[in-house]
Amino acid sequence: MSDLARLSINQMTVRQLSLPELARTCVELGVPCVGLWREPVQEYGVGAAAGLVRDAGLRVSTLCRGGFLTATDPGAREAALADNRRAVDEAAALGTGTLVLVSGGLPAGSRDLRGARERVADALAELGPYAEGMGVRLAIEPLHPMYAADRCVVSTLAQALDLAERFPARQVGVAVDTYHVWWDDTAPARIARAGAAGRLHAFQLADWTTPLPAGVLNGRGRLGDGAIDMREWKGHMDAAGYTGAIEVELFSEELWAMDGREALARTAERFVTHVIR
Amino acid sequence: MSDLARLSINQMTVRQLSLPELARTCVELGVPCVGLWREPVQEYGVGAAAGLVRDAGLRVSTLCRGGFLTATDPGAREAALADNRRAVDEAAALGTGTLVLVSGGLPAGSRDLRGARERVADALAELGPYAEGMGVRLAIEPLHPMYAADRCVVSTLAQALDLAERFPARQVGVAVDTYHVWWDDTAPARIARAGAAGRLHAFQLADWTTPLPAGVLNGRGRLGDGAIDMREWKGHMDAAGYTGAIEVELFSEELWAMDGREALARTAERFVTHVIR
Repeated sequence: MSDLARLSINQMTVRQLSLPELARTCVELGVPCVGLWREPVQEYGVGAAAGLVRDAGLRVSTLCRGGFLTATDPGAREAALADNRRAVDEAAALGTGTLVLVSGGLPAGSRDLRGARERVADALAELGPYAEGMGVRLAIEPLHPMYAADRCVVSTLAQALDLAERFPARQVGVAVDTYHVWWDDTAPARIARAGAAGRLHAFQLADWTTPLPAGVLNGRGRLGDGAIDMREWKGHMDAAGYTGAIEVELFSEELWAMDGREALARTAERFVTHVIR
Repeated sequence: MSDLARLSINQMTVRQLSLPELARTCVELGVPCVGLWREPVQEYGVGAAAGLVRDAGLRVSTLCRGGFLTATDPGAREAALADNRRAVDEAAALGTGTLVLVSGGLPAGSRDLRGARERVADALAELGPYAEGMGVRLAIEPLHPMYAADRCVVSTLAQALDLAERFPARQVGVAVDTYHVWWDDTAPARIARAGAAGRLHAFQLADWTTPLPAGVLNGRGRLGDGAIDMREWKGHMDAAGYTGAIEVELFSEELWAMDGREALARTAERFVTHVIR
């Protein structure tokens, strides 16, 4: 098996590349799989994007992202559900079985984390059957606790799995991203439990480097530059029976400033060096 | 009982005040208690500082901070232990029964979180009996997971309590700071467990506001400005039997830019509004 057989490049990692450039570069470099984002796919056209990646012989590991399901306002809640049904449709059209969900933060002025997490569960109850009907699994992604207020009230793999386990595994599972869970000594046991139940729907890599930038969004480290032992986390996923794509998803000003092809080539090299070999 | 009876002002909250100014302002405003930091106390002189707060009739809730116990280098490790014994001595001299410990981050180039946490345990085995002999309890403070790499490998109250429970409660307990634990739905149960065992040695408050500043150190929110329900966390501590001081510890550029007396007065007002009444 090629060293790159399980690599998926998340589109955000090389956002300076257009969708056709991304597809062409992946083919040239032998990267077999991509993780796509809704906004650039919509801009290109969902059907056109689906045709592009299909014609290039690429697989689509995940579509990022649905979610943002914590609104209390009924109108906003209905709009979020409708948008997530569209995200499911887009995932199905792109031929990926996995839609990644980021749950959303606290509504303005709210301090009710528990209530927000329950609204995510309520939304999953509506979206899960719809997704199943379209052949798409929802992957709840816990984000690092530093995003709990403004982006994602689901902060740990335990919380994500607690939510997922209320629904059938063919509807709802979890996404494991090293950047978000690396500090959590209880995460490996949750990976094992999720794997046993068929709920490991996505695996993403980014390294943890400091100091964090203002806003803490775009400082994800390139593999090997930070504090995370990538092989150890891949080992947890292997042991849990996960055999799917391994996505590299870096939000990195450093990487975005590079030539896109170069950024993708270097990312693939680091994947081999720090994850596979 | 006065609304301020349980308030302690952590010195860092109004670091623009000298130690005499801090003591005088606390007395004027009816704040009965302070949390002190080693560096300004050493600068003023430990004995002089002890006399100053004693003569002002102030209690000292905690001394911040010892710790930084994760070094692998034997020399650095010995130096850290010696420094922590001095911190214990200083706490005893100041008349506080509690030394707050921040465990330290990963050594440069290391990715071994588990090993670093074990070295903290090894150090506690040496420091605990020494502290007990001096009448001082060590309070392990879990810091928010965003500090796991570079500041504190103990990221959750569960991890802190797992460490503390290896030692007698009269030697080692935990410090609970809302800023660090507010996102963690498993923290309330750990507070209850720590309280039942007499291991709740300190309680600190800061609010969570976003966006976080670069470096994520000095953006702690003033009480009431952020996502944390202060009354809820005080309720957890109350239910666990904690009756000690409630320290307000804000690292805030905004607060530091204010007149120190004004900053302290406004902080006391917010304590009453958002915690007590």
